[in-house]
Amino acid sequence: MEKEVTIYDIAKILNLSPATVSRALNDHPAINSKTKLSIANTAAELGYRSNTFASNLRRKSTSTLGVIVPRLDSSFMSAVLAGMEEVANKAGYNLLISQSLESQGKEKSNAKTMYNSRVDGLLVSLAYDTEGFDHFENFVKKRVPVLFFDRIFDHSECATIVIDNEKAGYDVTSHLIMQGCTHILHVTGNLKRNVYIDRLSGYRKALEAHGIAFDEAWVLETDLSREAGKAAVDYMEKLPVRPDAIFVANDICAISCIQELKQRGYRIPEDIAIAGFNNDPVSQVVEPSLTTVYYPGKEMGAIAVKTMINHLTGTSDIDPANSVVLQSELLIRDSSRKLQREARN
Amino acid sequence: MEKEVTIYDIAKILNLSPATVSRALNDHPAINSKTKLSIANTAAELGYRSNTFASNLRRKSTSTLGVIVPRLDSSFMSAVLAGMEEVANKAGYNLLISQSLESQGKEKSNAKTMYNSRVDGLLVSLAYDTEGFDHFENFVKKRVPVLFFDRIFDHSECATIVIDNEKAGYDVTSHLIMQGCTHILHVTGNLKRNVYIDRLSGYRKALEAHGIAFDEAWVLETDLSREAGKAAVDYMEKLPVRPDAIFVANDICAISCIQELKQRGYRIPEDIAIAGFNNDPVSQVVEPSLTTVYYPGKEMGAIAVKTMINHLTGTSDIDPANSVVLQSELLIRDSSRKLQREARN
Repeated sequence: MEKEVTIYDIAKILNLSPATVSRALNDHPAINSKTKLSIANTAAELGYRSNTFASNLRRKSTSTLGVIVPRLDSSFMSAVLAGMEEVANKAGYNLLISQSLESQGKEKSNAKTMYNSRVDGLLVSLAYDTEGFDHFENFVKKRVPVLFFDRIFDHSECATIVIDNEKAGYDVTSHLIMQGCTHILHVTGNLKRNVYIDRLSGYRKALEAHGIAFDEAWVLETDLSREAGKAAVDYMEKLPVRPDAIFVANDICAISCIQELKQRGYRIPEDIAIAGFNNDPVSQVVEPSLTTVYYPGKEMGAIAVKTMINHLTGTSDIDPANSVVLQSELLIRDSSRKLQREARN
Repeated sequence: MEKEVTIYDIAKILNLSPATVSRALNDHPAINSKTKLSIANTAAELGYRSNTFASNLRRKSTSTLGVIVPRLDSSFMSAVLAGMEEVANKAGYNLLISQSLESQGKEKSNAKTMYNSRVDGLLVSLAYDTEGFDHFENFVKKRVPVLFFDRIFDHSECATIVIDNEKAGYDVTSHLIMQGCTHILHVTGNLKRNVYIDRLSGYRKALEAHGIAFDEAWVLETDLSREAGKAAVDYMEKLPVRPDAIFVANDICAISCIQELKQRGYRIPEDIAIAGFNNDPVSQVVEPSLTTVYYPGKEMGAIAVKTMINHLTGTSDIDPANSVVLQSELLIRDSSRKLQREARN
């Protein structure tokens, strides 16, 4: 185990007195800004944690796990957190949760807060635009385990929990093709993230498997918000050929598409079939009900915390060898049932 | 300002060595359970915080606010947290969030975690079954400000932010009466909480104002879940007189009522008018669209954090003098429009 970094270490490196370092870290007015900056930089490099007591106490468990998620306002994330809470509660752990609001900057600041709160382990689903792993390095250095779920980084010291997004994207697209659709618009999220690039890859492979040419113009990258649903319908109407199906990478945006299409006089699924992703409860409320992918959020959360606690209690390691791929399930509903509906009529 | 409690204080009171106290608090096997228990009790009484450094450092700001909410899986709470994040981010604060899952026991354990994470302030919306203030006393003692929002306690040292639930309940009920309804079932949540008891009080006052007798059998206390919506329809069918309206204290449960009623062949609003509460986005997706109360969640979150930060920066106090009552708004939609609909036909 690495030794805890103290103000004495920082003082030694910079050839300053420990008192100066302590004052600088407490933003004392007697220390000039240049010195403060160099001390802050050195402290960050060494992984210094403010308010430390002593290294033996530092290692003490807080029975707290940190969770950083992109947004809290999704039923998928609520399900993940419910699964996490269930396992954590039984094992006597508390969760501290923060949201990055899809911003790398805020994710970094959340990571710092979690670090200073001395969480025993950190569970992360990445923001849209996160590019580097730097802000998690301190945890790895201090042997505070980090686990990624859903939106992940590949890292040699971190486990991951995902669903097979490529297979799910393949299944949705194949289903639409089997219903007779040949012009399928794919509305997706930020392609930096595994979940969206993998779904796109599945969409592409399904087209190829059925002899349909892939065309980049038929992939629309959005933020998958309600507003993006309306924009997608605008985009669709400008395509040279009218799509006969839209596969949207989440339900909220798919439902907004349905509402917008209905308002513009399209019949669903007769004119355009729609499929979403996540099995958000609202996908059963919308009319017609939305074809979607059931994505085992609760299970994902439960397995993530189980993996973490097994690691903390020495039962298993948290490296990629313990990564898990969960199965998802295509739920066929009225929004894409072209064949059965015609047969019934 | 009170002095920070140390293991030396605990040792002195119990006439033990500081090493014994330290070991007991770290759950060392060499200390017997009886001693551990008495040390833990004394530590709790004194408001001891684990891993403390020194009282001057203790007072240092962590730029972190703790938020304890009943559940994260509601769009109202998502809106509150969005408002909180916006103000907190601008002021350089991070939020640490935890959910009580409507349980007092978990709320207590969350409060402990927040205390040990050294949050600068705590914002709380209470669980269904919370009865005492004990688990927040340590914060008040240490001058860590506590603010309640939505589901509140009245406490001389805490500010509160609420909407006028009684007026909102009155407005919904009056609207239903104006649509010609005289037998209005009220489906509500745990009546220990201000939000539900106040809405009930508004319902009751509106009935009285229109000369309709109040009957306890027409108030159904539930957990306001989807399942409760189905149970409410079962309950309704057993009443001696069939209701011509149902006023449900949240939208999720109201929508489940609508779906169940439609399945059983009732026409909405012709046979039964329905009103919900919260303006959850799904209230616009359900058919017919749901009459509900817009409840300014984002504003509530923003004001809560503003009040907290003003207190932390010395601009204002956090006592009840700074409590805020926000206005809500009745949104009339198709699920209760009996008159207009009949006029149109």
